[in-house]
Amino acid sequence: MNEKELRELLEQVRAGRLSVDAAAGRLEDAPLADLGYAQVDLHRRDRCGFPEVIFCEGKNREWVEGVVRKLVDAGQDCLATRVHAELSEHLARVFPQAKQDVVARTFWLPAGQSPHVRAKSGRVCVLTAGTSDLQGADAIVAVAGMDGALPSVVGGLVDCPVVAVPTSVGYGAAFQGIAPLLTMLNSCSANVVVVNIDSGFKGGYVAALIARRRFA
Amino acid sequence: MNEKELRELLEQVRAGRLSVDAAAGRLEDAPLADLGYAQVDLHRRDRCGFPEVIFCEGKNREWVEGVVRKLVDAGQDCLATRVHAELSEHLARVFPQAKQDVVARTFWLPAGQSPHVRAKSGRVCVLTAGTSDLQGADAIVAVAGMDGALPSVVGGLVDCPVVAVPTSVGYGAAFQGIAPLLTMLNSCSANVVVVNIDSGFKGGYVAALIARRRFA
Amino acid sequence: MNEKELRELLEQVRAGRLSVDAAAGRLEDAPLADLGYAQVDLHRRDRCGFPEVIFCEGKNREWVEGVVRKLVDAGQDCLATRVHAELSEHLARVFPQAKQDVVARTFWLPAGQSPHVRAKSGRVCVLTAGTSDLQGADAIVAVAGMDGALPSVVGGLVDCPVVAVPTSVGYGAAFQGIAPLLTMLNSCSANVVVVNIDSGFKGGYVAALIARRRFA
Amino acid sequence: MNEKELRELLEQVRAGRLSVDAAAGRLEDAPLADLGYAQVDLHRRDRCGFPEVIFCEGKNREWVEGVVRKLVDAGQDCLATRVHAELSEHLARVFPQAKQDVVARTFWLPAGQSPHVRAKSGRVCVLTAGTSDLQGADAIVAVAGMDGALPSVVGGLVDCPVVAVPTSVGYGAAFQGIAPLLTMLNSCSANVVVVNIDSGFKGGYVAALIARRRFA
Amino acid sequence: MNEKELRELLEQVRAGRLSVDAAAGRLEDAPLADLGYAQVDLHRRDRCGFPEVIFCEGKNREWVEGVVRKLVDAGQDCLATRVHAELSEHLARVFPQAKQDVVARTFWLPAGQSPHVRAKSGRVCVLTAGTSDLQGADAIVAVAGMDGALPSVVGGLVDCPVVAVPTSVGYGAAFQGIAPLLTMLNSCSANVVVVNIDSGFKGGYVAALIARRRFA
Amino acid sequence: MNEKELRELLEQVRAGRLSVDAAAGRLEDAPLADLGYAQVDLHRRDRCGFPEVIFCEGKNREWVEGVVRKLVDAGQDCLATRVHAELSEHLARVFPQAKQDVVARTFWLPAGQSPHVRAKSGRVCVLTAGTSDLQGADAIVAVAGMDGALPSVVGGLVDCPVVAVPTSVGYGAAFQGIAPLLTMLNSCSANVVVVNIDSGFKGGYVAALIARRRFA
Amino acid sequence: MNEKELRELLEQVRAGRLSVDAAAGRLEDAPLADLGYAQVDLHRRDRCGFPEVIFCEGKNREWVEGVVRKLVDAGQDCLATRVHAELSEHLARVFPQAKQDVVARTFWLPAGQSPHVRAKSGRVCVLTAGTSDLQGADAIVAVAGMDGALPSVVGGLVDCPVVAVPTSVGYGAAFQGIAPLLTMLNSCSANVVVVNIDSGFKGGYVAALIARRRFA
Amino acid sequence: MNEKELRELLEQVRAGRLSVDAAAGRLEDAPLADLGYAQVDLHRRDRCGFPEVIFCEGKNREWVEGVVRKLVDAGQDCLATRVHAELSEHLARVFPQAKQDVVARTFWLPAGQSPHVRAKSGRVCVLTAGTSDLQGADAIVAVAGMDGALPSVVGGLVDCPVVAVPTSVGYGAAFQGIAPLLTMLNSCSANVVVVNIDSGFKGGYVAALIARRRFA
Repeated sequence: MNEKELRELLEQVRAGRLSVDAAAGRLEDAPLADLGYAQVDLHRRDRCGFPEVIFCEGKNREWVEGVVRKLVDAGQDCLATRVHAELSEHLARVFPQAKQDVVARTFWLPAGQSPHVRAKSGRVCVLTAGTSDLQGADAIVAVAGMDGALPSVVGGLVDCPVVAVPTSVGYGAAFQGIAPLLTMLNSCSANVVVVNIDSGFKGGYVAALIARRRFA
Repeated sequence: MNEKELRELLEQVRAGRLSVDAAAGRLEDAPLADLGYAQVDLHRRDRCGFPEVIFCEGKNREWVEGVVRKLVDAGQDCLATRVHAELSEHLARVFPQAKQDVVARTFWLPAGQSPHVRAKSGRVCVLTAGTSDLQGADAIVAVAGMDGALPSVVGGLVDCPVVAVPTSVGYGAAFQGIAPLLTMLNSCSANVVVVNIDSGFKGGYVAALIARRRFA
Repeated sequence: MNEKELRELLEQVRAGRLSVDAAAGRLEDAPLADLGYAQVDLHRRDRCGFPEVIFCEGKNREWVEGVVRKLVDAGQDCLATRVHAELSEHLARVFPQAKQDVVARTFWLPAGQSPHVRAKSGRVCVLTAGTSDLQGADAIVAVAGMDGALPSVVGGLVDCPVVAVPTSVGYGAAFQGIAPLLTMLNSCSANVVVVNIDSGFKGGYVAALIARRRFA
Repeated sequence: MNEKELRELLEQVRAGRLSVDAAAGRLEDAPLADLGYAQVDLHRRDRCGFPEVIFCEGKNREWVEGVVRKLVDAGQDCLATRVHAELSEHLARVFPQAKQDVVARTFWLPAGQSPHVRAKSGRVCVLTAGTSDLQGADAIVAVAGMDGALPSVVGGLVDCPVVAVPTSVGYGAAFQGIAPLLTMLNSCSANVVVVNIDSGFKGGYVAALIARRRFA
Repeated sequence: MNEKELRELLEQVRAGRLSVDAAAGRLEDAPLADLGYAQVDLHRRDRCGFPEVIFCEGKNREWVEGVVRKLVDAGQDCLATRVHAELSEHLARVFPQAKQDVVARTFWLPAGQSPHVRAKSGRVCVLTAGTSDLQGADAIVAVAGMDGALPSVVGGLVDCPVVAVPTSVGYGAAFQGIAPLLTMLNSCSANVVVVNIDSGFKGGYVAALIARRRFA
Repeated sequence: MNEKELRELLEQVRAGRLSVDAAAGRLEDAPLADLGYAQVDLHRRDRCGFPEVIFCEGKNREWVEGVVRKLVDAGQDCLATRVHAELSEHLARVFPQAKQDVVARTFWLPAGQSPHVRAKSGRVCVLTAGTSDLQGADAIVAVAGMDGALPSVVGGLVDCPVVAVPTSVGYGAAFQGIAPLLTMLNSCSANVVVVNIDSGFKGGYVAALIARRRFA
Repeated sequence: MNEKELRELLEQVRAGRLSVDAAAGRLEDAPLADLGYAQVDLHRRDRCGFPEVIFCEGKNREWVEGVVRKLVDAGQDCLATRVHAELSEHLARVFPQAKQDVVARTFWLPAGQSPHVRAKSGRVCVLTAGTSDLQGADAIVAVAGMDGALPSVVGGLVDCPVVAVPTSVGYGAAFQGIAPLLTMLNSCSANVVVVNIDSGFKGGYVAALIARRRFA
Repeated sequence: MNEKELRELLEQVRAGRLSVDAAAGRLEDAPLADLGYAQVDLHRRDRCGFPEVIFCEGKNREWVEGVVRKLVDAGQDCLATRVHAELSEHLARVFPQAKQDVVARTFWLPAGQSPHVRAKSGRVCVLTAGTSDLQGADAIVAVAGMDGALPSVVGGLVDCPVVAVPTSVGYGAAFQGIAPLLTMLNSCSANVVVVNIDSGFKGGYVAALIARRRFA
């Protein structure tokens, strides 16, 4: 609730158009929908630009289904990551209209009004070893394991932010992603920022936020 | 040299308007100005959006002065970081028109055409503990040491990228910035990206790149 | 044996009411009940306020059953943690009167006189993400993984100790709980103390000790 | 502002006894006193039981003096830690009525009403190698370096919480306090909690909070 | 393309013997064969002395088969490492003329012209605990786990480079190869260089490059 | 071959009682029995006091059987550690006269003359939590995980060396034995020495060597 | 106080030859001499074979002098380590009869009866790079930095314990002694035990304890 | 002493041309020249191709001067590294004919016959950021700090070994060279080998050994 909304609410109380009880209720209103086993933050879309995303690792099917329903009921897009095979099958039965990507292990159930959002999403480039055209991207997501040198090399060639995602693939002194993480943090290219090891979701999320700035 | 320029060059060779020697020279032309002790990358501004920045730690006054002159002669803005006291005095004598910030230890010598760049730089917010208004920022730079929890908290309140800068201040299990670095990498807020420990420059640089997207 | 008891014993020896052998036996008496494969510390309840707790990881059913019996025979409460499925079934057969919590993997067999203890246990709050009322707690147990920022945030809002428990859930740079452990140790809130990674038991134990101070 | 205060404020607005502007101002009122270079949290005493404590490392004399004055003006106790020699002399000149401990490097300027607080502070025992009487303590602060075994040994003998403080003194594989930190986190005594390396202040603070529970 | 080749190409354009389109195509020609899911670097043999080697861990049979075919079609030797059992059987069916080593988990399919290469490969000695004759080697590959002291001892006895390969076998403070890695990096013998943990392939590759210098 | 033996050998050559070939052979004689896949050091017993011990982890049954046979043929005691179930069954069939300990996973096949060795082995005490009598030991083996405080406590009570063995059992910040390893290395008791994590064999071996000094 | 002494004391109480007060005093008697700022453990010599040793790092001259005097008054040998220059001069003035070694930074003030102790100390060999004769030692102290391979090599040649002391000298991946520490812990020689980094004192102490076993 | 020399010596003994004493002396002859405080390995040149090199860090002028003299007297080249200013001045006075490089902190005193050695040293390229011509090198030394990506990039372009030297320059997550060390160990280029952090000497030494293979 911003200052303008606050003043309007108080004005309504003063004018007798809103009872003290109702006003107190709205001022105390928590932005969390309580499912008993979980709190769903329904105000997040307004506050942060995207609804809450469900990280499925370590959660059972009832938990995930309940949170998806709560978001759907609130008319919000619903994205879930790290969807394991058994959970994927369950969600396919319960939400047949959703899209799932088995390789990326993601679940996607858009609300009705989302198309215009995508129309304004800018250009994001997810970098692979053989990518040949970086020109024109608003943000680049560069995923690398082992020596993690790719973002440094790319960062010196472009004029947009490079979001580096270290991966835990590899062996030996890669130390489950510590080596590429350090390489990326130490990049001599000043436009390279880093997210957590194996956090491809976060890499894409931030790149989308940056690309959306075109329309801010 | 993009494809169009390449074809034009080859067309000139074919038409006899450009000698083989001259064409070979241009195709082999390195974008580096060689100072003997250093290579200055003069094409970086066109490629990456900003000229090369001088990291002064461990370099002597002659080295830094030489690179500054090379950038100035090429009509480019010149920013230097980690300028120590003795170097600062020397640069003040040699380049009296430059601006220096003693606390931030920076040196800034803009070229003539830079004002319009700043006019299109968007809104960047550098976050401190008492900052009260985050609304409207294109990007936020959040600097924190010790438990490094600030970017996580802020990240959940805004809809733009948060560039987290861990600092080495603190003691004990802060381990010279390792603790806040890990906290930031593990942030539950998906819009938090991280740069190197104590790399405030990189934090600001990336935030500026993001904010500039408004005008892309 | 405190000084008063020591003097009484010696007085009995002097007065001839206690033989030298008996006195020597009591002075040498070990507070450990020897089961051959384990030593049960039966004096712990008097010394530390709670009887010994059985950590079941890596122990077989005979071992655990034997220690439970020894505590029961001594009229002491018996709590066991990290009770695996196979062990749980065995204990349920042998001690049908005990309570077990499958999710928390705990076994609880109270002795007859324990109710009055619980009546004096104060108020402990185990914190989850959606907890809305912290007022009035004597101690708070805050469990968090990944960035581990929760205890820092809560610590700044309350006037009682916060016992922070880092968990190994998460991925990447969470490093099996090292990241939240460091965050918690570096908390800017001075009322935050930390226990071992995944040591929820210790978190609750200390919180109970603190809450019991009300009745000290 | 709790619910009761909120309803009273809204009732005053409804009754016309408080203008909308004044009500908005109080609802937006930040508990931070802004000094320009620092924010002093004056509500902390009510919220957390103790006023804010000043960590002086890396801060200049003007900064510290300003914060002390702000706390004094608000009628609050003022404690400062890590007071270096030069700062200590300055503070002694400016606040001659304050007490300073040169070895502990602390500054202490109590407000008028603090005595009754100390009268209700319970019993805290700061443990040293030769301490002989642990009986009756509400909380024990155990400071140790190198192998850090002291809290484990003491923890098994008492019925109150032991706040373990690892120190960075020592050499070799003590690794600036990492070794005793790990020892303490792994203590087999369930009543041992841990604070940051060299954070004696936090150790004492938490012990005082625990001891104060007697009077909760 | 070196300078001489570049000048010849430009001369052909000038003389009208090569069209601008053809010249542009050759100047832009990427040395990567694109398989959709992978880029095969076919120029690597000319540039680096050996064709690309396939690291099979985490790749499926179609991926590997496709890359092998591309190399074979280009008339290049094909070596694959970390070939798992299921993949090995598949490759044996598809490329019956290839050689596989089940213990070393390698796949080797030489092109026709490779024999003369081997005839000029120098002498490489792979060191085991009981090796008795080091005389005359051009390079030594020394593989060791645990304390990793072997390369240090050998390095002091010979006049050629020793390529040390730390292995992750062992237990306890060997820390999956960190201990022998550090031992080898710290070797007092100046002729000891190190490769990644468990990177026997790289150890042999570099030793072969060194031995080949005889014929440079 | 010590100096005396060397002189005698040379004297025999000089006197013509030993041919040059035979002398060269003996001077070049390697103390290693070569099995092709392994080198058995048969001189170790004379040099180090005990024959070579077989570490079975990662070795197949043929390898182990071959080495056992070589030691048996040389009339030496044979001890093997980390004997897995499948290997244990195989060895039981092939060497029915050997003793195996399933819990300790050891294999023991003494040669005929070993009894007198054991008669001179001194007194070694392997310490467990409930051990009550440390008096009279020549060496103590103290095994501990988690906080690893046991050797420190014991070390301050006895006048013989304490060989501390950290174990990887435990959880959280025990970090697979790193925590007790550091505790033991930092022990304030000067008579505590440390061996590798989980190296109970080495702990017992060194304690036996120390105890044997009684008869040196 | 052992069992025999305990029974005699109790017998004296029973017989009226010792008052209850005196007996209580002796049973409660602490083996620590309290200097206010330090506790000197005077029973240590009887219990552990050597008197307490003073670690001088971080202690002032008055502290050290006081502890030396306490040991001297008790008729015990006094050894102090890490004696800095300023402290060394002070001790030389106060205890002119003591011996000091400036390079080893040690202070040694023997009590009258110590010679016979040294006569029974066995043979300890402190190993340096050029040591040529290891035969006959009861224990070897091997000091090494960087790759720390020396103890492994020596351990395979002798039949007595080797006490390995890693040192922090060196650079780069020696990591202030971590590298040689790991090398030594992972030594393939079963007779190698390890003490703390730079703990030459402990290395010598344990070697002396081992050598003394000859006379146990 | 190789087999041929051994047989000749024994033949001389047999023939009475060499006494047993003399033969024993030569067989026992150590290749170390003992200076009391140091052992100089004079056989190293024959065995390893280069004489011993003096690492001056932590050694005083008398020590270094003595070792230089011993090498000079033996007619060997003498190279010393990490020569500090005070030592440099001393050596300049004592050995005026030697060459010193103040920036590299090296001392070089060649023996008379060394020129022909250098004539056969092959081609080594020490890589800096702006190096433009790598063609024709026998070995490349690539020095890099921070992200350490240089050797990976170069390794993919050349057909000779690349000796990577991580440096400790940099800040933050470079961790005194750990980050570039890991990057280099994880290099995707199979021809990259690594030496210790800041060990430029070793990098050059190995490159020279490789280049010399041309003449093997």
